[in-house]
Amino acid sequence: MYQKVLVANRGEIAVRIIRVLKELGIRSVAIYSRADVNSLHVKLADEAVCVGGPMPVASYLNERNILSAAILTGAQAIHPGFGFLSESSEFAQMCAECQIDFIGPKPETIDLMGDKAKARHTMHAHNIPVIPGSVGTISSLAEAKKIAADVGYPVLLKAAAGGGGKGIRRVDSADQLAAAFEEARREAKGAFNDSDMYLEKIISPAKHVEVQIFRDQNGHGVYFPERDCSLQRNHQKVLEETPCPVLNATERQQLGETALAAASVIDYVNTGTVEFLMDSDHHFYFMEMNTRIQVEHPITEMVTGTDLVRAQILVAAGLDLPFAQSDLTLNGYALECRINAEDPDKNFMPSAGHLDYLYLPTGGVGVRIDSGVYSGGDVSPYYDSMIAKFITHGQTRDIAIARMRRILEELDIEGIQSNRAFQRALLDDPTFLAGAGNNSYIEAHFLKNFLERHGHKERQHESLQKKAVR
Amino acid sequence: MYQKVLVANRGEIAVRIIRVLKELGIRSVAIYSRADVNSLHVKLADEAVCVGGPMPVASYLNERNILSAAILTGAQAIHPGFGFLSESSEFAQMCAECQIDFIGPKPETIDLMGDKAKARHTMHAHNIPVIPGSVGTISSLAEAKKIAADVGYPVLLKAAAGGGGKGIRRVDSADQLAAAFEEARREAKGAFNDSDMYLEKIISPAKHVEVQIFRDQNGHGVYFPERDCSLQRNHQKVLEETPCPVLNATERQQLGETALAAASVIDYVNTGTVEFLMDSDHHFYFMEMNTRIQVEHPITEMVTGTDLVRAQILVAAGLDLPFAQSDLTLNGYALECRINAEDPDKNFMPSAGHLDYLYLPTGGVGVRIDSGVYSGGDVSPYYDSMIAKFITHGQTRDIAIARMRRILEELDIEGIQSNRAFQRALLDDPTFLAGAGNNSYIEAHFLKNFLERHGHKERQHESLQKKAVR
Repeated sequence: MYQKVLVANRGEIAVRIIRVLKELGIRSVAIYSRADVNSLHVKLADEAVCVGGPMPVASYLNERNILSAAILTGAQAIHPGFGFLSESSEFAQMCAECQIDFIGPKPETIDLMGDKAKARHTMHAHNIPVIPGSVGTISSLAEAKKIAADVGYPVLLKAAAGGGGKGIRRVDSADQLAAAFEEARREAKGAFNDSDMYLEKIISPAKHVEVQIFRDQNGHGVYFPERDCSLQRNHQKVLEETPCPVLNATERQQLGETALAAASVIDYVNTGTVEFLMDSDHHFYFMEMNTRIQVEHPITEMVTGTDLVRAQILVAAGLDLPFAQSDLTLNGYALECRINAEDPDKNFMPSAGHLDYLYLPTGGVGVRIDSGVYSGGDVSPYYDSMIAKFITHGQTRDIAIARMRRILEELDIEGIQSNRAFQRALLDDPTFLAGAGNNSYIEAHFLKNFLERHGHKERQHESLQKKAVR
Repeated sequence: MYQKVLVANRGEIAVRIIRVLKELGIRSVAIYSRADVNSLHVKLADEAVCVGGPMPVASYLNERNILSAAILTGAQAIHPGFGFLSESSEFAQMCAECQIDFIGPKPETIDLMGDKAKARHTMHAHNIPVIPGSVGTISSLAEAKKIAADVGYPVLLKAAAGGGGKGIRRVDSADQLAAAFEEARREAKGAFNDSDMYLEKIISPAKHVEVQIFRDQNGHGVYFPERDCSLQRNHQKVLEETPCPVLNATERQQLGETALAAASVIDYVNTGTVEFLMDSDHHFYFMEMNTRIQVEHPITEMVTGTDLVRAQILVAAGLDLPFAQSDLTLNGYALECRINAEDPDKNFMPSAGHLDYLYLPTGGVGVRIDSGVYSGGDVSPYYDSMIAKFITHGQTRDIAIARMRRILEELDIEGIQSNRAFQRALLDDPTFLAGAGNNSYIEAHFLKNFLERHGHKERQHESLQKKAVR
């Protein structure tokens, strides 16, 4: 087993990984930018190395400095967390060249799944259902027209090298296609220096359903109960739950086996998530694979009694998977609400700054709060705005929801704005309660109602800090 | 179901109950003393009523004021928590007379188990093994001499009406008996106005092993996996774990069935704990029954996926038990460390005062922290000194212990002293690690070593509040 591991990340996920390393008796090395000197992950790690300035490209994306820190401190492995370098095959390759284990899949796997058109092609070739559309990239407008007519409008044109919403166009009818094709290619060329496009039918309404899979170096693999991450805003997940409330056990098994098959055909090692879109008839289609741990992994841990980050480290070190498929029986329901420093009244603009006071309502049955900040610390303007992940579990979905309502109401944040009231309102929404949310529901329906009813009206909160006499 | 419930307690257990009430959609009424105006339980409840001055007898033991508060607010039931009025049959009877449900067993049951000699007698009559000694009370010195000779020295003389360590004498040989008998009777008469005594053989070394049981109003009952609470100081539990590391599954079942039988013979309703002493041959003897929820109940919840406080409320309202014996399979291991505001270097003197800063290391897999205080609040000198209950769970005992070590190290308390370093050292103790602790181990062995090695030497802690630059 490793003696020392470097965590190439910051915030909540860095804290999560450092904690697991402590529990495994492995020394932890944090890296930090000059803006993160006082961050929780720096304080909790056994060692910490400053790798650059506040901008991500200078520090958390600075491959050479991070590898130097690993070599200097004698770390035998690097855990990349999520975001930053977690899906950089180049960085994974550099680690290999320095004889440092990258805790994640092989560089080739990251590459293959990072090219969305190639990933589609590979899955299609192995009989994994993909969204109807082009097989691989499109070579001409004529080809695009033919495929769009075959699958039916509306369709999406997407850059093969895509990411961050760049090089994507929705096309509702044949007469819009030519202009959209040229525009998207131009944008993709500018953003990625690669104008390759592919085309997909738009599945709508669709649920975003994803399956965590895990395979070890000996080819043993398991799948976990699916997560329903349909509730999104601006392509960001807002509230995740497991299992998906509208799937039955047979569908669950079929989805899980498909996801594990998808991972097996590319000889995937370590954990990853296969994302599917599911239409209203419960047909599901491969969308993409995330080759890293994800923000929402704790809800899977809650319903299966596992520790995915711990298992990532064990498997990277060459050990067998610490669980078999038969260990992963589904126990109850779990939800996650992402609590972000952002202002719903100002179009969710980030609200960074000094956390004058923070009370996280830990305690009671079925509650877990993962956070990378502390009362009196700061929420940095340079990075994502996550304050905490609120995770609840219950024997039924109703109990898990009741627990989430309760902890959202107890949360006390002073000094910055948060999306707490937005999350709290979502938990009373009839569509959510019916399990009927889809990936356009928040923006098409919920958000307008929320802003009309709740805007500027967060319930007057009695701060613990102010200790007002009742 | 109830619409409103009053919580006749304070601190952590009041917060725990109020949270469950919120999750059940029941309005909660807190009571508080003038010293507790800013306490967390007051802030979290839907309503709060001041019932008197800081001294417990003026407020949290003030039966009439508490009942008035219940009537005034329209509460249909009272949850007494633990301590204070939780084992007062008189208060339970007064509740009944006011047609308010007391969330606990019937007054007669509280009475019967409150008289330790009568409880022994009842259990003995129903073939529940009791500690060898007198059957009921002793009428004369001659009888005491005969019984002591039969069971063998050393023995304990105990006041039947006992509590708080009053009216108890250890007797090591026959020539000490006469003097001890007179002394103990005199002390008991003074303390309880009742000089009745009973006699028990001293079991040593002994483990304190206890079984949570639960019975509903229809006579359905279950038992939970036993807890090992052997590690005590000054008759106070310090660290509890479940299951007992030295019992096997057959012994576990036998112990559980015995405990449930003990509860059944007295037609016990709601939850309670049957406490046993276990000798080195794994013979166990009924010691007493606690007719209330206990401090250490969360570890049982962690290994069985239940919510005991929720079930208490459902069962008090007349519903069936929400779990069957077959639901209560043992899942992993759980530990609890009581974090108290006390100074190990000054004989564990309470260290009340202002909590300048508190960081509770919530987060990660298998961690639960129940607390009734908050950063910037106070730890009152009038009541018990508990800051938080640190609870960890793991698939193995080693993992649960590693998680506990980790969160103890992350805990940050400024402004008052705590027993954190004491608990942290206990987790490295070879006797504890071997599962071999007994109820005299801390005072006879561990404490001296701890004070010699650790006294005045808590690891210099880098406060989060001070945000020192690394």
